[in-house]
Amino acid sequence: MSNQALFVLGGTGERGVCCPGLLTAPLDEGQAVELAKVFKALGDPVRLRLLSMIASRAGGEICVCDLTPAFDLSQPTISHHLKLLRQAGLIDCERRGTWVYYWLLPDMTDRLAGILTRPVGGPVPAPAEAPS
Amino acid sequence: MSNQALFVLGGTGERGVCCPGLLTAPLDEGQAVELAKVFKALGDPVRLRLLSMIASRAGGEICVCDLTPAFDLSQPTISHHLKLLRQAGLIDCERRGTWVYYWLLPDMTDRLAGILTRPVGGPVPAPAEAPS
Repeated sequence: MSNQALFVLGGTGERGVCCPGLLTAPLDEGQAVELAKVFKALGDPVRLRLLSMIASRAGGEICVCDLTPAFDLSQPTISHHLKLLRQAGLIDCERRGTWVYYWLLPDMTDRLAGILTRPVGGPVPAPAEAPS
Repeated sequence: MSNQALFVLGGTGERGVCCPGLLTAPLDEGQAVELAKVFKALGDPVRLRLLSMIASRAGGEICVCDLTPAFDLSQPTISHHLKLLRQAGLIDCERRGTWVYYWLLPDMTDRLAGILTRPVGGPVPAPAEAPS
């Protein structure tokens, strides 16, 4: 299956090094639109559980037949959630015979982690003191 | 104003140390529901731009009067987005006279960064080879 990942975030993919940094400078509108798609994909409990099951699987991949039984949801619903994770660039998959196998695309989670990491020496937000 | 942060993620708040790890073990349903609320708050371009403006502000806080002009949106709409970020535990605020001032709550972004960071020595997902 084709990888529909959104390569939205630029940068080198190195861990902890990512641009644009959400915490370092104001995002422009285009960056925000693309990044919001990825966070929106994560903004659902079923998709988070699916992603955690895929990412933590020993061996690095998991059959959809091992994902579905964990949910009280139909196969098409699970497949829809998996499609949204795939379109966000968080996972990829491959059909082999009857089943589809999924794996994490760690570049994207690395980039999100980098985006959410505070810059060294950057602004240090702190609760403000009310003026007297 | 009260801090309506959702303290959903447990852990110590140390950078890079966070539980539950999204990538280390399957999330349970309760963890996924709470974590999804935070990612959902980030899943909107206007909220991401607001958060980046707040987080990157030199001095660590910003007046709502400096946020609104960057958007072609009404003050109540901006306030609604800010409220959702605050309810997710990403920012907090304080009214001083006419204006409300906002600042980042870095514990939450640190926790999200930790959650999205791959464990050292954990599963190493890789695209699978199709069997011949």
